[in-house]
Amino acid sequence: MKEKRACRYGLLILLLGASVSFAKKPNILLIYTDDVGFGDLSCYGATKVSTPNCDKLAAEGVRFTDAHTVAATCTPSRYSLLTGRYAFRDRGTGIASPVDGLIIDPNKTTLPGMLRDAGYATGIVGKWHLGLGTKPTNYNEPITRGPKEVGFDYSWIIPATGDRVPCVWMEDGHIVNYDPNDPITIDPTVNRRSKESLIKGIPRIGSMKGGVAALWTDDEISFVIADKSCGFIEKNKDVPWFLYMSTHSIHVPRVPNEIFVGKSDCGVRGDALVEMDWQVGRILAQLDKLGLAENTLVIFSSDNGGTLDSNGPDLVHGCGDPDATNGHVPNGVLNGKKGNVFEGGTRVPTIARWPGHVAPGESAALMSQVDLLASLAALVGAPLPAEEAFDSQDQLVAWLGKDLQGREFILEQSNSGTPFGLRYREWKYLPYGGDKTDSSEMLFNLGQDIGEQNNVAAAHPEKVEQMRKKLIEILGETQLRAPKVKNKKKK
Amino acid sequence: MKEKRACRYGLLILLLGASVSFAKKPNILLIYTDDVGFGDLSCYGATKVSTPNCDKLAAEGVRFTDAHTVAATCTPSRYSLLTGRYAFRDRGTGIASPVDGLIIDPNKTTLPGMLRDAGYATGIVGKWHLGLGTKPTNYNEPITRGPKEVGFDYSWIIPATGDRVPCVWMEDGHIVNYDPNDPITIDPTVNRRSKESLIKGIPRIGSMKGGVAALWTDDEISFVIADKSCGFIEKNKDVPWFLYMSTHSIHVPRVPNEIFVGKSDCGVRGDALVEMDWQVGRILAQLDKLGLAENTLVIFSSDNGGTLDSNGPDLVHGCGDPDATNGHVPNGVLNGKKGNVFEGGTRVPTIARWPGHVAPGESAALMSQVDLLASLAALVGAPLPAEEAFDSQDQLVAWLGKDLQGREFILEQSNSGTPFGLRYREWKYLPYGGDKTDSSEMLFNLGQDIGEQNNVAAAHPEKVEQMRKKLIEILGETQLRAPKVKNKKKK
Repeated sequence: MKEKRACRYGLLILLLGASVSFAKKPNILLIYTDDVGFGDLSCYGATKVSTPNCDKLAAEGVRFTDAHTVAATCTPSRYSLLTGRYAFRDRGTGIASPVDGLIIDPNKTTLPGMLRDAGYATGIVGKWHLGLGTKPTNYNEPITRGPKEVGFDYSWIIPATGDRVPCVWMEDGHIVNYDPNDPITIDPTVNRRSKESLIKGIPRIGSMKGGVAALWTDDEISFVIADKSCGFIEKNKDVPWFLYMSTHSIHVPRVPNEIFVGKSDCGVRGDALVEMDWQVGRILAQLDKLGLAENTLVIFSSDNGGTLDSNGPDLVHGCGDPDATNGHVPNGVLNGKKGNVFEGGTRVPTIARWPGHVAPGESAALMSQVDLLASLAALVGAPLPAEEAFDSQDQLVAWLGKDLQGREFILEQSNSGTPFGLRYREWKYLPYGGDKTDSSEMLFNLGQDIGEQNNVAAAHPEKVEQMRKKLIEILGETQLRAPKVKNKKKK
Repeated sequence: MKEKRACRYGLLILLLGASVSFAKKPNILLIYTDDVGFGDLSCYGATKVSTPNCDKLAAEGVRFTDAHTVAATCTPSRYSLLTGRYAFRDRGTGIASPVDGLIIDPNKTTLPGMLRDAGYATGIVGKWHLGLGTKPTNYNEPITRGPKEVGFDYSWIIPATGDRVPCVWMEDGHIVNYDPNDPITIDPTVNRRSKESLIKGIPRIGSMKGGVAALWTDDEISFVIADKSCGFIEKNKDVPWFLYMSTHSIHVPRVPNEIFVGKSDCGVRGDALVEMDWQVGRILAQLDKLGLAENTLVIFSSDNGGTLDSNGPDLVHGCGDPDATNGHVPNGVLNGKKGNVFEGGTRVPTIARWPGHVAPGESAALMSQVDLLASLAALVGAPLPAEEAFDSQDQLVAWLGKDLQGREFILEQSNSGTPFGLRYREWKYLPYGGDKTDSSEMLFNLGQDIGEQNNVAAAHPEKVEQMRKKLIEILGETQLRAPKVKNKKKK
C-alpha cells in the first residue's frame, strides 16, 4: 500500500507538472447523500426527475461511472469512508442501533482527523450514524465520544438516521433545546411497526420518551442541514476547511417539504431527490457567494445504492406508494440495490469538481470511497502512518479525473446474502449467490453485461480462481499484513 | 455461538448427571509447549525419543488425535488461545517483534481475566510473546501493559522468545536483576545472522545492549520455569488457581542442559524434547506432593506444529545438526510443519487429565484451542458477554473426552503461502496451494489420506463449494455478526 501511495504521488507530480503546487490548500466539500442510486440523477440518465444542480456540478467536473461505496449499507460504508479501512475488519461496524457507542477508534487516523492535523477547520453537518458515547448511549449527558473525538471541530448532527430515535439535533455533543426536566429515554428494541415507535406521527426504529422540546421537524431537516452547512463555510471562509455535508435525503422517512411535493414525475421518492438537489444548489451558491468555488474541491456521492424500501415507512406512513415510481428505476441499468453486492448496491453517482484541477468530463475509472482518506492526505501533503487507513490507496490522480484506470481491485461488502463481491477491472466475482437461489460462484463481465445477468464462471475458470484467491487474500490480510520487523540491509 | 454454548452446557449436565456439580472449582494447569509437533512424543508414536511423563499424563487422561492450534505460528496462536478470537480478525497479531506493545486489548474478555473474575488465582510462567507496554517497548521502566493487565495476577516471563531480545526474566512487570546503571537498549532490526545479535554466544532476533546482570542463562531456562511454576502452585494451593505454564522447550535456540544432552536418539532437538518432558514430570510431581492431582484439570498442548528450523540457530550455533534426526519426523504422518496450514502446522499433541471427570482414552474429536476460553468459562460457570471471545465455542464436554465429535469446522491460520485452511469433519480445504506450486483449490479426505497427498477437489465440487463458502463466511463475519437490535417479540 505504501508503494502504491508513493507511486501514485509520483505520477501526480508528473501529470500536473511542477507549476501546480497546491500551495494554497483547497477547501474540501464532501456532499454525501443517503440511498441515492446510480440511476437517480438526471445526469446519470434519470428522466422522471430533474436534478439540475447535480447536473451542473457534473458538467463542471468529472462524472464517475464506476465509483463505489465500500459497503452496501450506511454504517459500514461511512465507517470505511472516514477510516480508510474495510468495515468487515473491525467489530461492531454493522448498522448501528440508536444506543450503540462510538464505533470509530479515536486513537486511529481518520479522514477529518488527518485534515484537522493538516490545518483544516473540520465540520460535519447532517447524518452521523456511527454511534455516540459508550453503549448504551446516555443522551441526557454531553456526548464525549463522537464527531469531535474522531476529528471534527464542529458538528451538527442527526445522531443515527431520520427513521431512528432519538429524533433530535445535536450540536457539538449537546442536544439542541435539551430540557433537563424532560429527560430522554430510549428503547432501541421497539419495532418501527409498533405504535410506540411513532414520533410526530412517523414510525421510527426504537422508541423515545421525553425530550419533546428538542424534537426535530421532519420536513425541515433539509433546510436545517443546508443552513448549518452554509454557516460553517461562512464562519471558516478565511481558513482551509473540510465539510462533511451528510444529507438526510433521500433516506426514509421521505417527507419532502411541501415546496418539493409533486416536483418529480416519480412519486415521493423522486420529490425527495428534488429536495436533495436543492440542497446541492444551496451549498454551491454559498461557495459562489463567498468566492470560494475556485479553491474548493467538491466531491458528491452517496452512501450506498438506491432502494424503494417497500416494507418501510414510505408505505406505513402513507406518504406515497413506493411502487408508484412511474417507471423510474433507482439504480438504472444495474442489478441489485442497497444492501447487496450486485453493482446496484455500491456503484453510485459520484462527481468531483475543482476548477482548474479536475479535468471536466467522464471517467470510467474503478473507484472506491475507501481511498478518499489516502488520496486527500496526498492532496494536502499529510503523512499517513504505515498501519493506519489500512485499505486506503492514494488515488488522487484518478479522483481528479486524470487517471482513467483507478484501482485494479475493489471490494464490495454486503450485510446479507453473499457477504462480499470483488471487482477486477471489468470483471465481477461473487463467491456465492447473493439474492439468487444459485449458490455457486458467479462471474460477470461487466464490459459486456453491466446488468449482471449472465454468469460466465464456467467459461473462465482461471479468472474465477484468480479473483477467489484475491478475495480470500483481502479478507485475511488484517493479520497477515501486520508490521514485520525488517532485517537490516547488508552493508 | 450463544446457542451452541447453551446447548453444550445442557448436554454436559445430561452426560455428567446431577451428582457431578463441580461444586469445588478445579485448579487448571495449562502446560503449553513450544513447537512440539504431532510426532514428537512417544505416546504419539515417536520411537527415537522417550517422553514418559507426557505418556503417563496421556494414559491417565484423554489423548486427542485431531486437536489444533488456531494458527501455525506462535503469536497468533497464543493470541487466539487467550482471547477466544481468530487472530486474523485483529491488527498487529502477527509474530511480535521485541518492541511490539501489548497486542491484547485489556478491555476485552481473556482466558486468565475470565478465571480471575471467577475467583481463581491466575499466573503465567514462561514464554509470553504477546507484546509488552506500548510500541516501542521501554524495558527501563516497569511494564504497565502486560500479563497483569489482561488477567494474570502473577507473571514470571520470557518477554518474547528465547531467540529474541531482551534475554531477561520479567516478574510482575519488572526485569529481574535490573540495574538502573546499566540500562537496556534494544534494536529490533538486527538480523540473527549478524554478530551484533549474539548474546552469550547465541544469535538472537534483535540486539540488546546493557542489562548484563539481568541476562538469563539459556541452559537453565527449563529449570527456572519448572521452579517458578511449582512455586506458584505451592503459594496458591489453598485456593482455586489457573497456571499458564508456557515452556521455552523446544523452541530454538535449543540448548538443552548438560543433563539432557544425548538423552534422545534424534539429536539436539530430541534432547530438548526430553528436557520438555522433564518439566512435565516436575510439575505433575508437585501436584501429587500437594495432593492437588485429583482436583486439577491438566491440559497439555503446543503452540504450533514442529519444525527443524534448519536455517536457524540450531545450525548457526553449532549445537547439533538439525538434519541429523536419525529418522525422527517431528510431525509424524502429517504433511506440513510450523508456519503453514497443512495438518502438520496446527495439529498438535493434546492431552487432558482430570481424574474422575475426564474419561481416559483416545479422542478423535475435532478440537481447536480457540474454544478453551468458552469451555473453561462453562466449567467454572462464568458468564461470557455475547460479543466477547467471538470465535470460542463451549466444547467442554469434548475437552473432557465425553463428546467424540467436537467441532464441525475449524479454521487453520498460516503466516505464509495460503493463509487459511478449513476443516469440516474429515475434510480439509485449502483455497489455494500452500507450499506447493499448484495454485488451485485443494481438498483432502483425511479419513483416507491423512498425509494430504491426494487432492480430490475435482471429484467433489459440491464439498469444495460448501467449504469455500464456509471459509469466506468465517473470514467476513467479524463485521457481519455484529450485534443487531432485535425487535420485540409480539405479545
